[in-house]
Amino acid sequence: MSRSDGDPSPAVPDFERRVPPGDSVVRDVCARCGFVAYENPKIVVGSVVRVGEKVLLCRRAIEPSHGLWTLPAGFMELGETPEGGARREAREEALAEIEIRDLLAVYTIPRISQVQLIYRAGLSGGFAPGEESLEVALFAPDEIPWAELAFASVHWALTQEARWHAGEATGPFVNPPEGL
Amino acid sequence: MSRSDGDPSPAVPDFERRVPPGDSVVRDVCARCGFVAYENPKIVVGSVVRVGEKVLLCRRAIEPSHGLWTLPAGFMELGETPEGGARREAREEALAEIEIRDLLAVYTIPRISQVQLIYRAGLSGGFAPGEESLEVALFAPDEIPWAELAFASVHWALTQEARWHAGEATGPFVNPPEGL
Repeated sequence: MSRSDGDPSPAVPDFERRVPPGDSVVRDVCARCGFVAYENPKIVVGSVVRVGEKVLLCRRAIEPSHGLWTLPAGFMELGETPEGGARREAREEALAEIEIRDLLAVYTIPRISQVQLIYRAGLSGGFAPGEESLEVALFAPDEIPWAELAFASVHWALTQEARWHAGEATGPFVNPPEGL
Repeated sequence: MSRSDGDPSPAVPDFERRVPPGDSVVRDVCARCGFVAYENPKIVVGSVVRVGEKVLLCRRAIEPSHGLWTLPAGFMELGETPEGGARREAREEALAEIEIRDLLAVYTIPRISQVQLIYRAGLSGGFAPGEESLEVALFAPDEIPWAELAFASVHWALTQEARWHAGEATGPFVNPPEGL
């Protein structure tokens, strides 16, 4: 298909809220081209990487939460498994090869329609900051920068992983009660 | 914005493959309106609903796999938890109220970029076919219509749930080796 040469409209969508043909839910439909913007929850995959009594954290070089500490985690891409995505994120953000062990938790962040699959993992070899990280480091329990964590779910994951590691509980966990 | 009255183009998107501004991956971008079709894996939520020695299956009234048997399951919607979505699907497809117990499995279907979160559940009350089901029924182990299951992952879930129920293994499971 070719564009109409006489059309002066800028190349941006012109969404209106309506029920598309054959659907039952109101969606964003582009009045210009008919595109239906189905919105689905997005999947974040990541890991708590443990080395002995320490866990690995990355200090973010990107927004949101630039400068704060987080797990190696990010959006799952098409065509990969959640475990494969978690390994890719550790490779990208911490230049680290990890071994996935258990599914630590399934968190839901309804405000941003996000489901997080966080795994327990071990480290194979070294680590260093990737492009999206300012620093990568291992933290003993009393060294974790609780006041400088990037997201609530990092707090949840570190707390629940520590309980599992201590033999106090086994996962997979979900959002803690105070988190919902 | 209003549409150009003189534009004779039909209301369909005109996608081309290119890297959108600020991105690093080739995406479908509409040449007509500039819409970037980010594609993310989609989440299916569902349950194996057990009543004593029987499990609940629904015979599909819709494509794909019309007429075949499946678990109550479907796409997770915005703003719900996976467990809430699994309960909603049981309500829609089997007119059943269920109680979520454990996370049975996390399956990945890379070919269609789908992640399935399947739960073990119990039944509270009765059931009947919803709009998308021809029949809903409880099946004892030797009654399960293995040759008429709608999807491979239904087979995996029923097999793995039975092992968990028998005390032979505990989940959460992933795709069985032969399933990848």
